[in-house]
Amino acid sequence: MSTSKVSRRLTEAAAPEVNDIIFKPRLDGFDETFVPLGDINKAHVVMLAEQGLIRPEHASALARGILAMEDAGPAAVPLDPSREDSYFNYEAHLMDNVGADVGGRMHTGRSRNDILATLDRLRGRAVLLDLVDALLRVRETALVQAAHHADIVMPGYTHLQPAQPITYGFYLAGVAQALERDTRRLMDTLTNMNVSPLGAAAFAGTPFAIDRQRTADLLGFDTYVDNALDAVGSRDFILESIADLSLLAVLWSRVAQDYFVWTTHEFGLIEFPDSVATTSSIMPQKKNPVVLEYLKGRTGQIVAALMASAMAIKGTNFTHSGDASREGTQGFWDTAREAIRCLQLLELVLRTARPVASRAGRLAAEDFSTATALADHMVREHDLSFRAAHHVVGSVVRSAMDHGVPADKIDVAMVEAAAREQLGAPLGIDAASVRACLDPASNVAGRASAGSPNPQTLRAHLEDAQVRLDDARTTLVGWHTRLADARQALQSATRALAGLQ
Amino acid sequence: MSTSKVSRRLTEAAAPEVNDIIFKPRLDGFDETFVPLGDINKAHVVMLAEQGLIRPEHASALARGILAMEDAGPAAVPLDPSREDSYFNYEAHLMDNVGADVGGRMHTGRSRNDILATLDRLRGRAVLLDLVDALLRVRETALVQAAHHADIVMPGYTHLQPAQPITYGFYLAGVAQALERDTRRLMDTLTNMNVSPLGAAAFAGTPFAIDRQRTADLLGFDTYVDNALDAVGSRDFILESIADLSLLAVLWSRVAQDYFVWTTHEFGLIEFPDSVATTSSIMPQKKNPVVLEYLKGRTGQIVAALMASAMAIKGTNFTHSGDASREGTQGFWDTAREAIRCLQLLELVLRTARPVASRAGRLAAEDFSTATALADHMVREHDLSFRAAHHVVGSVVRSAMDHGVPADKIDVAMVEAAAREQLGAPLGIDAASVRACLDPASNVAGRASAGSPNPQTLRAHLEDAQVRLDDARTTLVGWHTRLADARQALQSATRALAGLQ
Amino acid sequence: MSTSKVSRRLTEAAAPEVNDIIFKPRLDGFDETFVPLGDINKAHVVMLAEQGLIRPEHASALARGILAMEDAGPAAVPLDPSREDSYFNYEAHLMDNVGADVGGRMHTGRSRNDILATLDRLRGRAVLLDLVDALLRVRETALVQAAHHADIVMPGYTHLQPAQPITYGFYLAGVAQALERDTRRLMDTLTNMNVSPLGAAAFAGTPFAIDRQRTADLLGFDTYVDNALDAVGSRDFILESIADLSLLAVLWSRVAQDYFVWTTHEFGLIEFPDSVATTSSIMPQKKNPVVLEYLKGRTGQIVAALMASAMAIKGTNFTHSGDASREGTQGFWDTAREAIRCLQLLELVLRTARPVASRAGRLAAEDFSTATALADHMVREHDLSFRAAHHVVGSVVRSAMDHGVPADKIDVAMVEAAAREQLGAPLGIDAASVRACLDPASNVAGRASAGSPNPQTLRAHLEDAQVRLDDARTTLVGWHTRLADARQALQSATRALAGLQ
Amino acid sequence: MSTSKVSRRLTEAAAPEVNDIIFKPRLDGFDETFVPLGDINKAHVVMLAEQGLIRPEHASALARGILAMEDAGPAAVPLDPSREDSYFNYEAHLMDNVGADVGGRMHTGRSRNDILATLDRLRGRAVLLDLVDALLRVRETALVQAAHHADIVMPGYTHLQPAQPITYGFYLAGVAQALERDTRRLMDTLTNMNVSPLGAAAFAGTPFAIDRQRTADLLGFDTYVDNALDAVGSRDFILESIADLSLLAVLWSRVAQDYFVWTTHEFGLIEFPDSVATTSSIMPQKKNPVVLEYLKGRTGQIVAALMASAMAIKGTNFTHSGDASREGTQGFWDTAREAIRCLQLLELVLRTARPVASRAGRLAAEDFSTATALADHMVREHDLSFRAAHHVVGSVVRSAMDHGVPADKIDVAMVEAAAREQLGAPLGIDAASVRACLDPASNVAGRASAGSPNPQTLRAHLEDAQVRLDDARTTLVGWHTRLADARQALQSATRALAGLQ
Repeated sequence: MSTSKVSRRLTEAAAPEVNDIIFKPRLDGFDETFVPLGDINKAHVVMLAEQGLIRPEHASALARGILAMEDAGPAAVPLDPSREDSYFNYEAHLMDNVGADVGGRMHTGRSRNDILATLDRLRGRAVLLDLVDALLRVRETALVQAAHHADIVMPGYTHLQPAQPITYGFYLAGVAQALERDTRRLMDTLTNMNVSPLGAAAFAGTPFAIDRQRTADLLGFDTYVDNALDAVGSRDFILESIADLSLLAVLWSRVAQDYFVWTTHEFGLIEFPDSVATTSSIMPQKKNPVVLEYLKGRTGQIVAALMASAMAIKGTNFTHSGDASREGTQGFWDTAREAIRCLQLLELVLRTARPVASRAGRLAAEDFSTATALADHMVREHDLSFRAAHHVVGSVVRSAMDHGVPADKIDVAMVEAAAREQLGAPLGIDAASVRACLDPASNVAGRASAGSPNPQTLRAHLEDAQVRLDDARTTLVGWHTRLADARQALQSATRALAGLQ
Repeated sequence: MSTSKVSRRLTEAAAPEVNDIIFKPRLDGFDETFVPLGDINKAHVVMLAEQGLIRPEHASALARGILAMEDAGPAAVPLDPSREDSYFNYEAHLMDNVGADVGGRMHTGRSRNDILATLDRLRGRAVLLDLVDALLRVRETALVQAAHHADIVMPGYTHLQPAQPITYGFYLAGVAQALERDTRRLMDTLTNMNVSPLGAAAFAGTPFAIDRQRTADLLGFDTYVDNALDAVGSRDFILESIADLSLLAVLWSRVAQDYFVWTTHEFGLIEFPDSVATTSSIMPQKKNPVVLEYLKGRTGQIVAALMASAMAIKGTNFTHSGDASREGTQGFWDTAREAIRCLQLLELVLRTARPVASRAGRLAAEDFSTATALADHMVREHDLSFRAAHHVVGSVVRSAMDHGVPADKIDVAMVEAAAREQLGAPLGIDAASVRACLDPASNVAGRASAGSPNPQTLRAHLEDAQVRLDDARTTLVGWHTRLADARQALQSATRALAGLQ
Repeated sequence: MSTSKVSRRLTEAAAPEVNDIIFKPRLDGFDETFVPLGDINKAHVVMLAEQGLIRPEHASALARGILAMEDAGPAAVPLDPSREDSYFNYEAHLMDNVGADVGGRMHTGRSRNDILATLDRLRGRAVLLDLVDALLRVRETALVQAAHHADIVMPGYTHLQPAQPITYGFYLAGVAQALERDTRRLMDTLTNMNVSPLGAAAFAGTPFAIDRQRTADLLGFDTYVDNALDAVGSRDFILESIADLSLLAVLWSRVAQDYFVWTTHEFGLIEFPDSVATTSSIMPQKKNPVVLEYLKGRTGQIVAALMASAMAIKGTNFTHSGDASREGTQGFWDTAREAIRCLQLLELVLRTARPVASRAGRLAAEDFSTATALADHMVREHDLSFRAAHHVVGSVVRSAMDHGVPADKIDVAMVEAAAREQLGAPLGIDAASVRACLDPASNVAGRASAGSPNPQTLRAHLEDAQVRLDDARTTLVGWHTRLADARQALQSATRALAGLQ
Repeated sequence: MSTSKVSRRLTEAAAPEVNDIIFKPRLDGFDETFVPLGDINKAHVVMLAEQGLIRPEHASALARGILAMEDAGPAAVPLDPSREDSYFNYEAHLMDNVGADVGGRMHTGRSRNDILATLDRLRGRAVLLDLVDALLRVRETALVQAAHHADIVMPGYTHLQPAQPITYGFYLAGVAQALERDTRRLMDTLTNMNVSPLGAAAFAGTPFAIDRQRTADLLGFDTYVDNALDAVGSRDFILESIADLSLLAVLWSRVAQDYFVWTTHEFGLIEFPDSVATTSSIMPQKKNPVVLEYLKGRTGQIVAALMASAMAIKGTNFTHSGDASREGTQGFWDTAREAIRCLQLLELVLRTARPVASRAGRLAAEDFSTATALADHMVREHDLSFRAAHHVVGSVVRSAMDHGVPADKIDVAMVEAAAREQLGAPLGIDAASVRACLDPASNVAGRASAGSPNPQTLRAHLEDAQVRLDDARTTLVGWHTRLADARQALQSATRALAGLQ
């Protein structure tokens, strides 16, 4: 009996196009799936033996065979595309090694469908943990840099127009805060993903008295996906993961866009070392923001991966099928790796960006972004309604601009002229107050509300944020510990079964 | 001093194109934003008064003015597009009513930016609560129908090919289980959304000693978004919401696709009453599945809304801007309403679908989907490896198909012939076992694993699922209670301030 | 016999959800579809009469009935959602007016399927013509402004870094050239769309000897879509239209992004009148680029409409269905209207943008964007390889930047020092040449290649572009003339049939 | 002077992340870009020599160097990621071979920007030609199979419900007709793409008197892109290409969905050989439609590539940048290759699908899809209005279904009973007519309209379609001939310059 043909139902070899276009590329990731596939086999065999569903001698031989394959590594497995995919190649090699009769018993009470669903979750879990790790590194850098630059005053923008002075540290703290939500989303998805579909078999369960919680435990899953149809037919954990990455990518693209604008000749707020730039083949003066463009450009790809998957899966029936489970999700793995790379670049950007404090301060002084403080002062000290104060200051600004007077040269006389025009009477405002309002540093320091760029407020905020980051790190370490413990238990049980310890 | 011009900085009226294309449509939703906008104003004024940031008489007048506007309703507010948007129209009308000096004091220590961000969260919270409610109704119907049809045997499909017999109740339980994850995602997003940006002001805080937690409490928020830049510059709660809806829509589209296929003349597994179908203008025999097509077709729109928002926001700077905060998110509201409508239709589908038990049973008996049980039986009773059993049964099936023998007519002789061919010897299998394996009902009843369609297993599963559904309903009620309490507190505080109680 | 029930096959009224969610919204556009629906009916009846497929007296009565409905207008038609859609409501009203027997004969040899497909093409044709018209207006403005500002020197950017001096006119000419391709795409789609599906009936033709070319002619179509299945089952002309608009939207978003950056305080290259800006509720100095943000933000919506349609249609069978023909395409109409509005705003932007020549010239002089010309000069006059010249100039720039020397203050000594460093010897370059290279205006004027910003080259280019624009306008007028002629012929034939002339 | 550093402006090596994540992957396609890059260099050098812009001896040495590199092949070029990309590696190797002074002259009057834009068009042109070729093969197969199966009657569906009998050949003719539009779109895009950006230099032209039409001719372009900014800043030809492929993919997905449904056990209309199916690891009876699922699943990826590009480019400025020109378009190449693979699979599907004529005929006879012909007959022979006939037949169908009578067993008595019920009187219809209407084959043969499935009509249609296919093939051959001629001319001119002929 040949082991190379899986089915006796089908009697022809695959067409060359099917072999080359569909089956062959499925084996590209064999090295990557080899270890988790072995783990699934170990967990299943251990459970079958414990449940008495296969005889001890068969279980032992299977355990030895699987461990031997693990030792020999994926390169020792001859790959034949006509066997359709990694799983059948793995099984065929095992049957060659331990004999067809013993090897053929491993598939008792399961199906390729639940194996593939389990593989996707094991691999997805690993990649999400890597993503969280990369994300925490970015947050760490953002917080460190924020603390370092807590006092660097710069213009703050809305609509890319000067709005109010902030500090560079305040900006970075905002980015770090947004990244916290991305961490939370990925962590939630990780929890949702860490549920075992193993034992769902093809989609309809099995007559064998398998113990689904036991295989779940051995593979580090929290529990199992109950309804078997849903267990193999749903890959929403992949859609959810790409959705998380899409939101994250939108964020990093916005941040990259900020630096893209801030490093222009005209803004000049941020400088990068030459090591993160490229040059031009023709223009000798050029220093191009290649990293920022990469971050911005790759965002499209990541969000589009969600679209690709949603579009493919949307049209399928609610059950296992090739487009729902395989073709529709295949973009995720590249997307996740790309996201990790982009997080590394984002960390590089935050780490190497240098604010140009002098330029930043001068712009903030001249660009009228201090005007709101003047209005606020009139409300506090001169009993104006805010709307009236807004009108007085708007008139001052209008006049200063018309006469080419920069913001920090506005004086009491100009303010009182505007007050007379708008209110019919001067305010009696004093020069020191006008100066204080229009000085960017004291302007920022005057902000009193929670979450404002006031450096003192900011430093307290950063300490809290660091605590939350440390907590997240601890949670991540906890995941790794739990998974390592489960793997250890799996390995011990398999070795015991194999009679190796 | 005219109240119709907000700024003294700008000296020209809006161009007609700007007025007609941009400003006018912004007022379309005035009726909907009027109440939450009033709530924000009340919370802010109550807090300003408590913090001593405005004088008691001003606060009292403002409170009275706001309550009077609330009583008069949105229709009493004259809308002028040239005032740019709802907020400025609200403020202008208030100033007309309470005087420019008093009315102009309401805007102390805040900005339209944090108001709009707060509005989006208040409206988003309400719409998510409606979505969760609609979702729970669908789950309820799915569970009720699943219990009702727990014993209706039908073919189960993978790749739309007959795979193994299941029950219609098992299918519905799978759908309900998947919808649980959608509920969980929406609930998570609801929690993430329920944080107050109010007090961030324009994006950089304010010199006024506002109490952000107090306004958060008065508006039913759990806490406030700390960093002010992020508070007004980020709308990821909207992206996250649309992502949740996208995943949900992909699911309902798959379910609709199942019914779409099952109600064909050829499948004939499900019947719908005429009330959910349409006819043809030309073909007199037609009964078209209009509801299913609607569910499938509208999915694209919902997923695309995520694309629209991500694409718009992705290119913006990380701060408040029109494309990040307004244009980039405006698709959400229609999308959410469409999703609620689709959930209503989905509930209608699940409620009115009638399985055609006779047809379903006959198909399951004839379509060879019972074959796996025969292989499993050989493993259990005849000590075959699963792979060997698979080959024997594959050969039986091949032969039966070639001779036009339906699955339930396969007999011992055919099985033994295949065993001889594949294994070189007969199995000694008995006729009763072959019959039991090939009978769809006993086939299903023989499934022993957790999450399988065995009706007994299924009923236990459904009881657990109902408990989780009840819990979710309790949680939803809890939300409504908390929000009603907060609104009550807000109303009381405002009335007290206004001297009305 | 009641006319309100279309089918005798279905025996129940539509469920309330179906009525409210699906049928009712279909009637929203009745006013818009009323005229083209009437035209289709006229063309069909004229053809039926000419082919002898209905009796003259019936044809005459139908023609009179249709013309009477046209005179009375859509408001005279009572709309009943339970009749499913516009077509059945139209037919029912006609049957009320001319009697069920005569009215019921209009549907001979056709189906709602080919009517809806025809309606979509008629409406699509009209909207594409409007789009082309709006696009030509933008091109006109771009060319007029380009000619007006052909000599306004400004920095040219790649990667948003100063690259080489250009003129503002050159920039606008580039935009106009890109818009030409968008025009071409829309015109191609218009041609592809202008083919009649009428006569395909449900999707499989009809036994009646209808003349498909005749109805095509009467409706202004060039020919008819031959295979009937494809004729009613394909709406790729809508996907193609949205794809055209998507590419166009990507372009206008990029242009808006340019102005968004150029109008910042820091760039200061472009000023807009206050009439295209908005203000801030809190920051008195603010002038926000609302139109640019609208253009950028709405782009996402337009591209996403393609996604929505592709996603919906992708999952359907290749034939007529609700999701393929109706739900999957329903986003197009709003998208097209939004695109027309955005083109109006884009025209406003190009028309009202004012380059700040002094600022532009100063930046171009200082920002080192003139450096390439210096390298080119060394190649031409000093026999350096370009790469060597690039190195020398790169070194000059490096040194000038290090010492805070702006580009136009680089002198011969600095150049020769760099030459010595890079080449080991001075070049013997003269001061006048250095000055000419580093002066932005002479730098631009020195460009000799086709398509360069040299004002003389540019003006010639603009003249050619104007000719092509005039040609496009002529083509558009040709379309309108042809369609008006066809409508005239349709009206005459119908009136003749009705005995009205 | 080291050749490894391109710029003297930048003084640091690239950061490791930049090198590994950004630069290294750019070299993956070096083998593919090597030949067109060489062609561009040849065309530029020939033109420079002809224009007298470099000295003959330099031109000759460059020509020899380029030809020598071409002979040695891409593997002979040492690749250094720190040189940023393929172009700089090519240039560096050339300078190593012919000396820095000579090699450095090649870049006179051009930039990497126009080179990359030219490369994209050359590679895009080649891939579009391959796509058109693959598409024509599918059309050929569709037409051949359509002719072969012109008489195979089967049920035709709308809404996946039996609608009217058609033939399998008619279905295939519809697919072929739709594919014609895809061919046309790709051909249009090809023409739009075939315009040379070379000579635009960085984006702003050059002072050298280059001849842009000459390099365009040498590279087989029809003309050149005039405005230089647009020439290097726009990649809409890539967006347009992906849009074409997206529409094509939506079509093939619909066709795959048809076969997916038709090969189910329940429909049983189409059979595929085992060579295009896969099996199950657990269910021995399984034969899964892997090719169809691949076609359906990969569609998402192709449409999403348009989204990825549009999203990336949308946020850029209208000029050359990394995200606009490189990152934003990088998905195109894989997408195009995937589309070619999918077209090969689609051709396999159409070639190997076997209609099951007996099953198809029986379904068409029983499923009431013949009913419309009966109504049409009543209109023609019994002077009923179509609406009245529709009601009579609807009533017959209703009654037949209620009594379990299949369509082809409906007799005169049933018809007359319905006529009496609906019209108050019998029709006097004869039995032979009823039988003829309800017989699927005569039903189809009775269709008289253009584009209908009547086999005679269909065969004439197929002949016309074959003529158009032959024309398209001729056009494609014409493209290849013209490009081969241009390459020949380029090679001759280069060799002449090199003194090699």
